[in-house]
Amino acid sequence: MTFFPADIIEQTQRIITDFSARGLMVSTAESCTGGLIAGALTEISGSSAVVDRGFVTYTNDAKMDMIGVTTATLIAHGAVSRETALQMVHGALYRSQAAVAVAVTGIAGPGGGSTDKPVGLVHLAAKSRSGKIIHREMHYGDIGRTEVRLATIRTALDMLVEAAD
Amino acid sequence: MTFFPADIIEQTQRIITDFSARGLMVSTAESCTGGLIAGALTEISGSSAVVDRGFVTYTNDAKMDMIGVTTATLIAHGAVSRETALQMVHGALYRSQAAVAVAVTGIAGPGGGSTDKPVGLVHLAAKSRSGKIIHREMHYGDIGRTEVRLATIRTALDMLVEAAD
Repeated sequence: MTFFPADIIEQTQRIITDFSARGLMVSTAESCTGGLIAGALTEISGSSAVVDRGFVTYTNDAKMDMIGVTTATLIAHGAVSRETALQMVHGALYRSQAAVAVAVTGIAGPGGGSTDKPVGLVHLAAKSRSGKIIHREMHYGDIGRTEVRLATIRTALDMLVEAAD
Repeated sequence: MTFFPADIIEQTQRIITDFSARGLMVSTAESCTGGLIAGALTEISGSSAVVDRGFVTYTNDAKMDMIGVTTATLIAHGAVSRETALQMVHGALYRSQAAVAVAVTGIAGPGGGSTDKPVGLVHLAAKSRSGKIIHREMHYGDIGRTEVRLATIRTALDMLVEAAD
C-alpha cells in the first residue's frame, strides 16, 4: 500500500493518532533526510491535523535563511554538529505554529565522510514549547545512503514522541 | 536498495546528473506530497549540488509565512488551485538560491474531496529564473493516498525538467 517500510508507517500512524487527540502540531527541519520525515508523517490520512510545516534545509544558506542557523555556528562546528542541530530545531519550532519540532543533520554517504565525521554520523534534536530539549548523536555506520536516512527517520520519530511527553 | 519506486529513482538520477552538469539548483514547495519530492531528489548521491531547499507548506499558515501565498488568494481560490500553486512556486523560487522551482498542492485523500475538488485533484506549477512558467491541473482520480502522492512526484519531476529547458 505505502512504499515506506511498514515499521515507519506504524510509528507515524501512532504519532498522528496520539498527537491529533492531544492537539499537538509538529514541524521538522531536515538536512540528510531531505524531507522524508515530513513525507512519512504525511503518508498518514489525517496528518493535516498534526503536521504544520517542514523545512528542508539542504544547503548552509537554507539552514541560515529558513531557520536561523548562524554563520558562527557553521564555521565553528560545521553543518553536522550538535550545535547546528540545536539551532535548527529552535528555528523549526519558533518559525512555525508547532508545539514540538525535530531537526536532523548528518552524513548519509556514500561521499562526504571524514575521520572526525564519518558516513552514518547524524545529529538529531527535538524541542517542545514546554521547554524540553533532546539531543542525540547517532553513529549508524556506513550502511548505505538509504539505510542511514531510514534509520534517521526512525530515531527522529522516537524523539518527537519523547519531546512531546 | 531504495524504497522509492524504481521509475522515480531513475527520474531523479537523471535530474541530478543533468542539473549538476548544468550548475542548476532546485527548490520545492510541497503540500500534498509533504516533502517527498525533495525526499526523492535527495535519495540520489550527489544531490547536494542540485537541491537547494524545500518548503513543506502543509497548513495555510505555512503557505503564507514560508512562501508568501496571500490570504486573498486562499480565500478566493482555495489552497488547491492554480492561483495558489503559482504563488507557491514564485515564493519557492525567489526565497531560495535555486534556478528552478516546483510547487504542488492537491487532495491526496481519502478525505477532503468535494464535487468541485475531488480526491486526486492536484495543481502543480514550475518556474525558472529565465521566466518560464508551467502550470498543470491533474486529475489522478481516487486511486489511493500513496498513489496520488507518487503520481504527483512523477509529474513534478517532469515539470522541473521542462522548466529548466
